Amino acid sequence: MERSLVDRIRDFVGAELVGNERFFDGRPEVPVKASHVLRDEGLANWWLPRDYGTLGASLEESVDVVAELAYGDAGFASSSFISILGADILHFFGNRSVAESFLGPMARTGGFCATLVSEQAAGSELGRIQTSFSIKNDHVTLNGQKFLSQNSAYADFLVVAARPTEGGSTVRLVVVPRDTPGIDVIKRWETNGLRGTGLYRVNLTDCKVPAANIIPGNGLRLLEAGLNASRILIAACAIGMSRRIRDISMDYARTKELKGSLLIDNAVFTSKIGQIEMLIDVMANQCKSAAVQFDDLCSAPDPAKALFQGGMLKSALAAKMYCGQAGWEVATIGSQMFGGLGYTEGHLIGKLVRDIRSVALVEGGDDVTRDLLFSRCVLPADNRRRVAAG
Amino acid sequence: MERSLVDRIRDFVGAELVGNERFFDGRPEVPVKASHVLRDEGLANWWLPRDYGTLGASLEESVDVVAELAYGDAGFASSSFISILGADILHFFGNRSVAESFLGPMARTGGFCATLVSEQAAGSELGRIQTSFSIKNDHVTLNGQKFLSQNSAYADFLVVAARPTEGGSTVRLVVVPRDTPGIDVIKRWETNGLRGTGLYRVNLTDCKVPAANIIPGNGLRLLEAGLNASRILIAACAIGMSRRIRDISMDYARTKELKGSLLIDNAVFTSKIGQIEMLIDVMANQCKSAAVQFDDLCSAPDPAKALFQGGMLKSALAAKMYCGQAGWEVATIGSQMFGGLGYTEGHLIGKLVRDIRSVALVEGGDDVTRDLLFSRCVLPADNRRRVAAG
Amino acid sequence: MERSLVDRIRDFVGAELVGNERFFDGRPEVPVKASHVLRDEGLANWWLPRDYGTLGASLEESVDVVAELAYGDAGFASSSFISILGADILHFFGNRSVAESFLGPMARTGGFCATLVSEQAAGSELGRIQTSFSIKNDHVTLNGQKFLSQNSAYADFLVVAARPTEGGSTVRLVVVPRDTPGIDVIKRWETNGLRGTGLYRVNLTDCKVPAANIIPGNGLRLLEAGLNASRILIAACAIGMSRRIRDISMDYARTKELKGSLLIDNAVFTSKIGQIEMLIDVMANQCKSAAVQFDDLCSAPDPAKALFQGGMLKSALAAKMYCGQAGWEVATIGSQMFGGLGYTEGHLIGKLVRDIRSVALVEGGDDVTRDLLFSRCVLPADNRRRVAAG
Amino acid sequence: MERSLVDRIRDFVGAELVGNERFFDGRPEVPVKASHVLRDEGLANWWLPRDYGTLGASLEESVDVVAELAYGDAGFASSSFISILGADILHFFGNRSVAESFLGPMARTGGFCATLVSEQAAGSELGRIQTSFSIKNDHVTLNGQKFLSQNSAYADFLVVAARPTEGGSTVRLVVVPRDTPGIDVIKRWETNGLRGTGLYRVNLTDCKVPAANIIPGNGLRLLEAGLNASRILIAACAIGMSRRIRDISMDYARTKELKGSLLIDNAVFTSKIGQIEMLIDVMANQCKSAAVQFDDLCSAPDPAKALFQGGMLKSALAAKMYCGQAGWEVATIGSQMFGGLGYTEGHLIGKLVRDIRSVALVEGGDDVTRDLLFSRCVLPADNRRRVAAG
Repeated sequence: MERSLVDRIRDFVGAELVGNERFFDGRPEVPVKASHVLRDEGLANWWLPRDYGTLGASLEESVDVVAELAYGDAGFASSSFISILGADILHFFGNRSVAESFLGPMARTGGFCATLVSEQAAGSELGRIQTSFSIKNDHVTLNGQKFLSQNSAYADFLVVAARPTEGGSTVRLVVVPRDTPGIDVIKRWETNGLRGTGLYRVNLTDCKVPAANIIPGNGLRLLEAGLNASRILIAACAIGMSRRIRDISMDYARTKELKGSLLIDNAVFTSKIGQIEMLIDVMANQCKSAAVQFDDLCSAPDPAKALFQGGMLKSALAAKMYCGQAGWEVATIGSQMFGGLGYTEGHLIGKLVRDIRSVALVEGGDDVTRDLLFSRCVLPADNRRRVAAG
Repeated sequence: MERSLVDRIRDFVGAELVGNERFFDGRPEVPVKASHVLRDEGLANWWLPRDYGTLGASLEESVDVVAELAYGDAGFASSSFISILGADILHFFGNRSVAESFLGPMARTGGFCATLVSEQAAGSELGRIQTSFSIKNDHVTLNGQKFLSQNSAYADFLVVAARPTEGGSTVRLVVVPRDTPGIDVIKRWETNGLRGTGLYRVNLTDCKVPAANIIPGNGLRLLEAGLNASRILIAACAIGMSRRIRDISMDYARTKELKGSLLIDNAVFTSKIGQIEMLIDVMANQCKSAAVQFDDLCSAPDPAKALFQGGMLKSALAAKMYCGQAGWEVATIGSQMFGGLGYTEGHLIGKLVRDIRSVALVEGGDDVTRDLLFSRCVLPADNRRRVAAG
Repeated sequence: MERSLVDRIRDFVGAELVGNERFFDGRPEVPVKASHVLRDEGLANWWLPRDYGTLGASLEESVDVVAELAYGDAGFASSSFISILGADILHFFGNRSVAESFLGPMARTGGFCATLVSEQAAGSELGRIQTSFSIKNDHVTLNGQKFLSQNSAYADFLVVAARPTEGGSTVRLVVVPRDTPGIDVIKRWETNGLRGTGLYRVNLTDCKVPAANIIPGNGLRLLEAGLNASRILIAACAIGMSRRIRDISMDYARTKELKGSLLIDNAVFTSKIGQIEMLIDVMANQCKSAAVQFDDLCSAPDPAKALFQGGMLKSALAAKMYCGQAGWEVATIGSQMFGGLGYTEGHLIGKLVRDIRSVALVEGGDDVTRDLLFSRCVLPADNRRRVAAG
Repeated sequence: MERSLVDRIRDFVGAELVGNERFFDGRPEVPVKASHVLRDEGLANWWLPRDYGTLGASLEESVDVVAELAYGDAGFASSSFISILGADILHFFGNRSVAESFLGPMARTGGFCATLVSEQAAGSELGRIQTSFSIKNDHVTLNGQKFLSQNSAYADFLVVAARPTEGGSTVRLVVVPRDTPGIDVIKRWETNGLRGTGLYRVNLTDCKVPAANIIPGNGLRLLEAGLNASRILIAACAIGMSRRIRDISMDYARTKELKGSLLIDNAVFTSKIGQIEMLIDVMANQCKSAAVQFDDLCSAPDPAKALFQGGMLKSALAAKMYCGQAGWEVATIGSQMFGGLGYTEGHLIGKLVRDIRSVALVEGGDDVTRDLLFSRCVLPADNRRRVAAG
């Protein structure tokens, strides 16, 4: 019987990630060797639509895959799925031949895509980005400074958010081959956690690409559609890390003596693990539910239209926010589980606490997400209710 | 176009429950008039399997129904669904003709079932109950004192947990018509909330029923299977109450002035509502996910076997625990939303805070649930992992 | 050896309050008989400065007294100390002979003072109150509607916040004998908790008092000074209620069986009580520290000046906010301590949960207090630091 | 006018610590240069009793000093005060001439003392330590392995907990000069935070010291007395770090734009800072209150007896537990304050989050402290109450 994707991933995690946490935490050169193993086993970019010859797993299944990968290393997991943001937008909204010209090779080589949006001054307000593009003779020229972008150094291509220097203010997304002259990766960030992935600061100076590389549509709206997938998978990382915290706690408790018996027989310990198990289950169901909604849009007769109209999915926003909060609750419990020993750097819990914090920080912190949930979900519904009642 | 079940329920809630909160909070005689309206509209016991001529809604759909009902009054909601515990056990595990003889009339009259398990000394440890039964000449005689049971006064029949006076210690569930001599409802409890339902203390003295009324199988195991449904629907009450808290907060904020503008424009307010909306979405997805798992077992080729083997479903336990905690977070926010006014009894928020507390208390408090999650879910999986690894 | 004030209060609480919780929770006519006992034992208004023939206890000692009273009934406690707000302002800032003419009799009869500030529309923004006064021929005439005021029905006199109908907008505080024509107590509020005290809605129609009854100084600034004392004592109520929750939990745990032994031997239970004990200790030290700061101002050479300049004391604000939050944490733990039994109205925990909520709501909810801490304490200090650095 | 100790410390912090956070976070060789500056300015070991020619500050004042130091670097702060554990025990309970022979030089040179208690297997249960001593010919010989001890590498002397190889099981504390043969510092721990101090693993092999170096009395009881001071000062570190988090947040908010204005004008931001300010005030008052109790014991006619009888002070336990929890709440808020930037290693918030975690972990995690509060504070008081009532 064929092993399922998740089973194959679990095998990969056991063989390549578990036990190598210090390596991944040491800011290794990325892509790491494990990425090549993933590619060689045909598992790279498992989430990419089947059109490109990949496994074409659903987002629902991807939640399980990512949770497994993050059980091993969340940074590695992140590198493996974060391409979905730009790639999905390109696939669903881009010109078909452009999409194929970039996604086809990426699928074949197990490559990466980077999405360059955030800028220092704009912060969470994407509408304030300053990177600009101008069009001349069927070519687009990009200039700007991008602050935090993952995978940029080793990506096959970048999806860059920019606004026109003239003629309207609508932000556009432009596909830029990585080897385009003018792309300058000026820094790899040292981060508190997620050190198994690469986070970069990138300058764009007179980067010139064909005008067809502009993805049609309002860039901010396209991003809203695309962020559903990446937010759900970021959230899914918290599932895997929480399971890891549970399991290393159980391992510890099986041998740790306390008051004449084992920690695993202590009611306070079992109570903590029970709480963690509840949180893991709720995180998983939230991510799965959100993913199913996304999958439904993707399998609509006109997925681009469905995704565009769907906009920001409430459950995707809620998944990212909830898993950030629940994961932090798990980490808070976990960080006290091992006494002073857990405060030493050799101990895995320190890495897990640092890694899990990222879930609440990337692609919209809690304040941003609460704001979006209010303005996008509560207020319109409330207004509809009032109109209906009025 | 026919209105869906949930739409019809929403109409009912708007017509019969919303606006009558003080009535329901005043410990009315139950069943209240609204129960008859529900019955007359063919909505009573919507969850009962279609075999009995009812709507036969899935548990997944029931989550939505219960959330709507609890938006109006959680006590009323509770009366309306809590029969599912005994009724489902009787339906899936009972003798077919016994099941039909009780569930058929209940379906036709919109009646109620009460499940009598808890006893004062036993508390959450069902294995310690003392109510006993003895069998003689094809009849069972029951004796004992049940501490907290819902619907008992006005139920059509009771499902009573008891242990044999001789011959083994296995707890059995026995179906007892409400008009059986020896059933003494000695007290209706005054409760902090959920006053729209009836909670009773019941003594059983030499209650005699046919031996065929014993539901085959280990009573505690049957309860474990049956509690999945009731726990999920109890959890679903927190969804509806949280939505109500959100909506009355929005109504208040639309007219309340603060610092020269309206509260609804205040960032702290919108942040709180955003957090509440996230919690509501997570609660709903958790309840739905758990309900789908239960529905899947019910539609297995041999549902009794599937439910029995399924035992306590992790997601059902997690749903009850999570919604208790998340609902309390919502209530804590809500109880500070209206200033001193919210502390006056005329204000709905006080009732909602009292009502929502029940979710964390009934059918297993957090300590019990954490313990179950650890011993039933974490420990066995961990042991399996060790065996696999060993 | 003479018994200390706190010991005498503890005796009183044991004799008059403990065991009568249902009476106090039943919205009794106030002042209740226990108030007369307090007076007859010479303990009434223990906090009133010694000048008036009372015990003249410090605010530090009053924290202990109030904690003891609230151990018995927080509503009764509240009636007993809330007069301090108006009385202290009158004592420190009022015309001496006016002060003596009101405080002297109050001291002799164990009477009450009510402070009428809050109005429906103004909410927490005291600057927006609409009650007005006009001066003519050495008399002040007051008109307005006060929303929430304690003790008004049975107070000896009221301290009313009002703004001039002409000539400036500065809010003033005016002392009004209770029997002044035009005072109309239109409603006693039904409240969720604190039912042992009386909370009222009061209309003032052409109430006429001598102009000398206007307390000199900006009324809002005087209130800021006076609120320090009442906020600290409100906070102190949470100490007493938390101790009560701890003690009834211990009593329960000494006899409740769980898993073959007593609850008191269960590690999860002891862990909860340990957490509660920590919170109680922190609440007590915070209230005491704030009280000592207030006492220091009161014993300055010019206490009125010291209190006025001191304004809102950071520690008093922090005490009220912290005790509201910590008390709610204790109540949340306590409300799950007794299983379903704790959800019945006969059980004391329900009353304690409702009573303790008041701490976070009266005299400034958390949002107001956080705002004050930021604008009054953090921002000025930060600005000073910047100036020093600049 | 002479500057106060706290002012002088603040100057020192501004000159030597602030701005050098990356240095301290880089696990520098300790004692760092700043220690020598502290010594040269006569500030080292400010807490040591005046008898030895030091400043002899009270523990109450030391709370302020430590908060200032931890504002700069908590690791450095920790090195500077943690000697108090062994030194205070030696001073109050040791043979006078032995005490002078160790504490005198330490005072003159600004040296350090290390207290070696914890062992790997024993964990938080000090009664289970295995390090042993035997007495022969007026000499004590020590053997054992100590797991986590601060300052050991560079201390002037060690205070070692050990149990006799024969003749009773009472743990004793033995003073051991650092240069005693057989002391082997086998490892400096890499820790998640507090990297400005040195934490070591130490083996003792046939370490021989005069028998007079045994401090008279039950070692575990002496430790209980001594831990009061160190626990309070560990707690005080959270005050300083929380202030730092507040201040860097304010600095950030003064220039960070959000929605067309500055972050510092955003209500959600000010609300967070208001909450932090409240927590800081409560932490400070709790530490001060506990310190005053300790100071009172130290100034009793027979301080050794008073400290011994005082045992574990409830407020000291509560201070450590509370500041661990409150500090973590501040850190949780702070770690989301700076968006993705705050997740980069150059940013101070990452270090502060890692550093502040130590407060909840060292010298008794929350589970241990809750247990102690229950068994040492609640249970005995409850039993007394019952005896009094019986």
